[in-house]
Amino acid sequence: MTGYAARPILGAMDIFTAIEKRHSYRGPYKAGSVPRADLKKILLAAVRAPSGYNEQTTSFVAVDDSEKIRAISEILQQPRIADAPAVVVLCMDLSAKKRRDLYFGVEDYSAACENLLLAATALGYAAVWIDGSLRRDDRARRVAELLDVPDSFEVRVVVPLGVPEESWPQKEKKPPAERVFFNSFGSAG
Amino acid sequence: MTGYAARPILGAMDIFTAIEKRHSYRGPYKAGSVPRADLKKILLAAVRAPSGYNEQTTSFVAVDDSEKIRAISEILQQPRIADAPAVVVLCMDLSAKKRRDLYFGVEDYSAACENLLLAATALGYAAVWIDGSLRRDDRARRVAELLDVPDSFEVRVVVPLGVPEESWPQKEKKPPAERVFFNSFGSAG
Repeated sequence: MTGYAARPILGAMDIFTAIEKRHSYRGPYKAGSVPRADLKKILLAAVRAPSGYNEQTTSFVAVDDSEKIRAISEILQQPRIADAPAVVVLCMDLSAKKRRDLYFGVEDYSAACENLLLAATALGYAAVWIDGSLRRDDRARRVAELLDVPDSFEVRVVVPLGVPEESWPQKEKKPPAERVFFNSFGSAG
Repeated sequence: MTGYAARPILGAMDIFTAIEKRHSYRGPYKAGSVPRADLKKILLAAVRAPSGYNEQTTSFVAVDDSEKIRAISEILQQPRIADAPAVVVLCMDLSAKKRRDLYFGVEDYSAACENLLLAATALGYAAVWIDGSLRRDDRARRVAELLDVPDSFEVRVVVPLGVPEESWPQKEKKPPAERVFFNSFGSAG
């Protein structure tokens, strides 16, 4: 890379832009696969998230096998997922529960998922955090079975991603003044 | 800002650099306050995190009143916090539990906290996500009382932040190959 450092690097999106552009995308994807190099870059961002006691309870299965993606789509009963070129499945290590008095599995995968979504956004992909849908009808266990996830892990999030065919905005948020206060809850400072 | 868009903007750190530089900092801070403009930029990044059903269950109290910071330090029995120029307290809206069959309060504040930490990192601050310490000895409730947090919210995270006096690395992580798989848990692809 010598001599190229001063040039703009593809994917070098500034953090505030990535945060603003990230959105939950449930639309169609452009044809074509997600290169493994991009998937790895996204996953390396995810594993660097903080975790309680640095236990790193989140593991990731990146799925780019189209048959497995179709199977995940069927388990979740979400046809759109079948067209995603890649799906990342976040798995929570339950064994850490035994090692400490407190357990931060949910916090850990949530921070990791946010890193994953921001990194995907920076590389030009759109994605969506699918979570609640897994908690019905034994779906998490069926996805776990499909991907050989051991019993000591629980499948918690599925993130389909690809290059978006449509342009979607971030969902509308409450005015910051309703959620951000200074020195006292409810105070604008 | 016309005419300046092509120039590097202070704080425009690329997302992958921010993810790599973010670390849990428990060292001393340089003297001086955190400007409100920076705190607002950090908090605007935090409120843009995704949330289950877009319920936006996380609210934030940014504390830069030194007496209140000292009080938080005493409640948490962490003397170092007393020297932080700012502390952000993340509060989880419990009322959303009643509105839906699933509740994502922990996921919501965890994603928001990661945005907050990345934004702080990009602006040159160091911070740490303090969570478990709040869950002992009624400390979360005492912090809530100090900051007039209503009963419908629970204090979940305290993030002291400031310009670091010392250079700390990110905690060592497991090799990615132990946590990142392709198409099947345990498979390097």
